[in-house]
Amino acid sequence: MTGRPQAGPARFGEPAAVGFSYAYEGRLLHEERSLFQRIEVFEHQTFGRMLVLDGLTQTTEVDEFIYHEMLAHLPLLCVAEPRRVLIVGGGDGGTLRRVLEHPTVERAVMVEIDAAVIEACRKHLPAIAAGALSDPRAELVVADGAAYVGESREAFDAILIDSSDPVGPGVVLFSPEFYRACRNRLAPGGVLAAQSGGPFFLQAELHTAFSNASTAFPDVRPYLASVPTYPGTLWSFLLAGESLDVDPDSAAARAAARGIAARYWTPEVHGGCFALPAFVRDVVSPSGPPRSFGPSPEEHEHGAVPLR
Amino acid sequence: MTGRPQAGPARFGEPAAVGFSYAYEGRLLHEERSLFQRIEVFEHQTFGRMLVLDGLTQTTEVDEFIYHEMLAHLPLLCVAEPRRVLIVGGGDGGTLRRVLEHPTVERAVMVEIDAAVIEACRKHLPAIAAGALSDPRAELVVADGAAYVGESREAFDAILIDSSDPVGPGVVLFSPEFYRACRNRLAPGGVLAAQSGGPFFLQAELHTAFSNASTAFPDVRPYLASVPTYPGTLWSFLLAGESLDVDPDSAAARAAARGIAARYWTPEVHGGCFALPAFVRDVVSPSGPPRSFGPSPEEHEHGAVPLR
Repeated sequence: MTGRPQAGPARFGEPAAVGFSYAYEGRLLHEERSLFQRIEVFEHQTFGRMLVLDGLTQTTEVDEFIYHEMLAHLPLLCVAEPRRVLIVGGGDGGTLRRVLEHPTVERAVMVEIDAAVIEACRKHLPAIAAGALSDPRAELVVADGAAYVGESREAFDAILIDSSDPVGPGVVLFSPEFYRACRNRLAPGGVLAAQSGGPFFLQAELHTAFSNASTAFPDVRPYLASVPTYPGTLWSFLLAGESLDVDPDSAAARAAARGIAARYWTPEVHGGCFALPAFVRDVVSPSGPPRSFGPSPEEHEHGAVPLR
Repeated sequence: MTGRPQAGPARFGEPAAVGFSYAYEGRLLHEERSLFQRIEVFEHQTFGRMLVLDGLTQTTEVDEFIYHEMLAHLPLLCVAEPRRVLIVGGGDGGTLRRVLEHPTVERAVMVEIDAAVIEACRKHLPAIAAGALSDPRAELVVADGAAYVGESREAFDAILIDSSDPVGPGVVLFSPEFYRACRNRLAPGGVLAAQSGGPFFLQAELHTAFSNASTAFPDVRPYLASVPTYPGTLWSFLLAGESLDVDPDSAAARAAARGIAARYWTPEVHGGCFALPAFVRDVVSPSGPPRSFGPSPEEHEHGAVPLR
């Protein structure tokens, strides 16, 4: 975030890549420094209210449905009967809300490290949780997610990692140890889903998340969705389990039986979101991202782009 | 583009939506006003050289492969043996280059209205065409694409509409009349592909393009790809024909037989790119985009986003 916005009109930019940023004009509604991070809420003409943590857009009222549906509906529709769900992070409540839309779910535990995020969202972004935080099936725990997973003895049908990016305190949520601890908490047939960064501008992060998850789980599949307020827009997630059932027909039947009404997810998206463009496939290959998503050395001979 | 950049260091922003723009820091290499538009070429640390027409990014050295592969390889791999191809627009040569990578192609006609764009790209962005403009199978025509299609008596196996957005002079390339004229120029089994705007911020344009194409063709299918320098990143294309063959296995066999080496397109992407998120399906439905991609009226009761 460039400059410190004052309450009232604010222009701010979120860096996406070197020399490239997403620029917003909005109005600052709320600003505080919590124990863990700087919390800001902006009102924006296109995106509605925006939650920004340490200068990085976490969610907005207008496009939140994309990220939250793909982090919650997609994995839950890969499970025959998800009853117990653990959410790590997700203080805005948007993931919890989608989890609770599955009538099979009897219990959803949301472990958020920063109580101030929950409070800021409750006050300024209530449209995102849409009441889910008060659902009797929901338990809110303010705690370190990694510690919670390590200490829990419960078995979950789905664990959803709704974290910030793997920088600073969030990095532990992308570690091999954390993924292994999650696997130990999964019931038979259970799945883990995690956001894993943008394939354009966070290639090293996606590569590491996929590699680390692959040390813990025998079956890990990246999938993609487009979130216009995330840097690069194209965003990746990981689905992990013992042996994943990603069949779109099964998912469609489950969605119909559960009455899931989605605005991004469809049975076709369920089938298509696992299709990785060739350069993304390279990012998650064992040899890692060979270079930026820029021109190849051969193409380079024709031009003048400095190779990075 | 905010402000008029001078030769040398330049900051410029491309509006994506109200209060939201993509901001670049680069270096202006070239600026001219042609008969049709303002042409600028920037050098950018992340995207390499960028072609900007009337303030809108058309292509960059680093991400051009995405748009050009999906506009050329995808339709050509839906045709058993594409021999004659017409490109309308595409002055940078990136589409032509991918067309000529198909060894079945005997003749590729590129009709670009603005000779100054061809020259600027030849001089400043040679990595994009990578020599294709000099291929003996290529014919370059500087002419109005709509007039050319109307007057031509040739039959093409594929017509690729590599246009700017449907504003100003480009609008005719999205009209029912133009799509009908294109259909008249297709050989049996031939296909048309066209860029059709971004599903987030150009919803009315995508709706109109799809509706207009559907008046001319019995089979029209939108497909998607992510181009990080286009506003909203998620971008749409239309594939149109009498009865389309979009089978990924057929496309994969053709790609292998033709030796196509792609960096975005894969057989899986060929299958997955036609999967429309629910809100995009709504955009192209006959009733049109019902509202922005923002919250529904019910969700609204919980929050404070002004409905647009």
